[in-house]
Amino acid sequence: MAKAKKSALKEKKGVSFSETTNESSIKSIKKRRNIKVDPSQLIASILKGDITALGKAITLIESKNPKHLKDANSVIMGCLPYANNSIRIGITGVPGVGKSTFIEAFGKHLTQQGKRVAILAIDPTSSISKGSILGDKTRMESLAKDNSVFIRPSASGDSLGGVARKTRETIILCEAAGFDVIIIETVGVGQSETTVHSMVDFFLLLKLAGAGDELQGIKRGIIEMADAIAINKADGENLKSSKLAKEEFSRALHLYPEKASHWQPKVTLCSALNNEGIDGIWELILDYLKTTTKNGYFEVKRNKQNEFWLIQTIEAQLKFDFFNSPKIKKELAKQLNLIENKKTTPFSAADYLLNLKQ
Amino acid sequence: MAKAKKSALKEKKGVSFSETTNESSIKSIKKRRNIKVDPSQLIASILKGDITALGKAITLIESKNPKHLKDANSVIMGCLPYANNSIRIGITGVPGVGKSTFIEAFGKHLTQQGKRVAILAIDPTSSISKGSILGDKTRMESLAKDNSVFIRPSASGDSLGGVARKTRETIILCEAAGFDVIIIETVGVGQSETTVHSMVDFFLLLKLAGAGDELQGIKRGIIEMADAIAINKADGENLKSSKLAKEEFSRALHLYPEKASHWQPKVTLCSALNNEGIDGIWELILDYLKTTTKNGYFEVKRNKQNEFWLIQTIEAQLKFDFFNSPKIKKELAKQLNLIENKKTTPFSAADYLLNLKQ
Repeated sequence: MAKAKKSALKEKKGVSFSETTNESSIKSIKKRRNIKVDPSQLIASILKGDITALGKAITLIESKNPKHLKDANSVIMGCLPYANNSIRIGITGVPGVGKSTFIEAFGKHLTQQGKRVAILAIDPTSSISKGSILGDKTRMESLAKDNSVFIRPSASGDSLGGVARKTRETIILCEAAGFDVIIIETVGVGQSETTVHSMVDFFLLLKLAGAGDELQGIKRGIIEMADAIAINKADGENLKSSKLAKEEFSRALHLYPEKASHWQPKVTLCSALNNEGIDGIWELILDYLKTTTKNGYFEVKRNKQNEFWLIQTIEAQLKFDFFNSPKIKKELAKQLNLIENKKTTPFSAADYLLNLKQ
Repeated sequence: MAKAKKSALKEKKGVSFSETTNESSIKSIKKRRNIKVDPSQLIASILKGDITALGKAITLIESKNPKHLKDANSVIMGCLPYANNSIRIGITGVPGVGKSTFIEAFGKHLTQQGKRVAILAIDPTSSISKGSILGDKTRMESLAKDNSVFIRPSASGDSLGGVARKTRETIILCEAAGFDVIIIETVGVGQSETTVHSMVDFFLLLKLAGAGDELQGIKRGIIEMADAIAINKADGENLKSSKLAKEEFSRALHLYPEKASHWQPKVTLCSALNNEGIDGIWELILDYLKTTTKNGYFEVKRNKQNEFWLIQTIEAQLKFDFFNSPKIKKELAKQLNLIENKKTTPFSAADYLLNLKQ
């Protein structure tokens, strides 16, 4: 009876629990509402590699309760000296390219070599749908069972900037917890690639042969960001066209000016499903690390990323504070109206609004 | 003797005067230092179409003397009700494409039809070199003699944003002075195309056949902005390759999603030198105007541009004010140092700096 009541209550809230729902995510929702932590104890557990503590700390970071902010910052600061020692890999590709299968095969290859792997996600749509591209862990079933793997769905947030911040802070915690490789997955749409690119050391683009986007060039910016392109599903009937696509991309990549890393982006074939070519991609990443550590670019890039996030965060906050002031909101509408009626110019209106604020 | 002294003084200042130097630009420099104006008189003269008054008002706008700001704003406000009634055309193309020759031929075609034409320029390098792409009016000799033409070199400014503001305000003055067509020229490099695109009704891209940039795609963004592509120098030996290039661009343009204007960008051939195809381009622009006036896009676009400049100006000023505060400058350097030494995160540093400011 009590159970039925509970269930009805849940349904009333619009939360439906099916068999596929992940138990831990329910627990995590409950935790988010009432987290009691001792930051120093949490830090100590994280540094020991305790995955439960790590999950708890991430939940703390993601909490929107202002009371948790101080504790969250304490935990991050405590972990910071032990961070920065992983390889951060960004993986992107349009839906259908086989990202989950690839990450599962890739992750397994790494754990077999004794690496500890954390998998995070940035989902540009999560701020709208509150969904998550890694929410359904069943997609990476065998990995999820592995103790040396930590999978965390996309942080939810009100903005991509908010999600980015939480992800960056999560990277620090994962590194402090001793993870050697951090994989950040994103869907190949929108602005999220730029966001992921600005927080990883190596950016891998998954492609399919003959998908045609190379001609339309809509994702050209992403190709420019890639340190390697892996053409997935290069098996069976696809093999021939994949080889052609490899040649085509290699040629295209040579047209771009040399990167600051002095690294020439590579194109490679793989079949995540058949576990083919996965080892080659890892070798390639190690090669990249060797090159960029030697020429100093690795450290330069991380410093530049830090600077980027500092400036980015400040600028976003300045804009937010300005345009969300009730006074400005009201006056902005008035000024837009005046502009439309040719009573003022955008520049005079801007001057007026900026002077109002002060 | 006195003359020699004067000349020596000029050389000392690093200003060398040669025969090719434009006399009027020297006068304008002198004027900038000491402008005395009666705004209402200036407005009255501008509305009568007085080109001297127009030039004086633009010099006032461009003045960096804070004392001139109030008068400049009065003149702009007085002209505003009489503005907005021209066709604003942006023209871009890489150096060597023949922009000056094209604008000369195009301008002549318009004046022959009784139009009054103002030619302005945005030069992304002018803020560094203090040079100007239209500074040498001799490049447009025959046009410069025409009384229905007003040519104004690029405004100098400390930033592209500053130059953009002055250009936008100059457009208002030119329109109030009765110019029917405003042409804004820019060099096909850097950010200036985006700037020009956001202040014109129609954006024309000049190209050469076989110039190869279509393959490298570096200027892809510009192609996306174009309402028409004119392949210039389509004459003599170039004609065949120009026709091929026309086909290629037409195909490429069809791959882009439909524009909000519902206008399908056109590719056309011309030879500015032989005065061929110039009339066709003007017909095309009239066609565009007809389409977009009918479907309402013309007005929508101008309103959106106004909104863009309002927001853009505010955001730029917010950033400028923040990062140029001496306190922030000092503390920013400290925080960057702390980040580099893993003593703080970019986000905590941002929070710290934002709280400092308040």
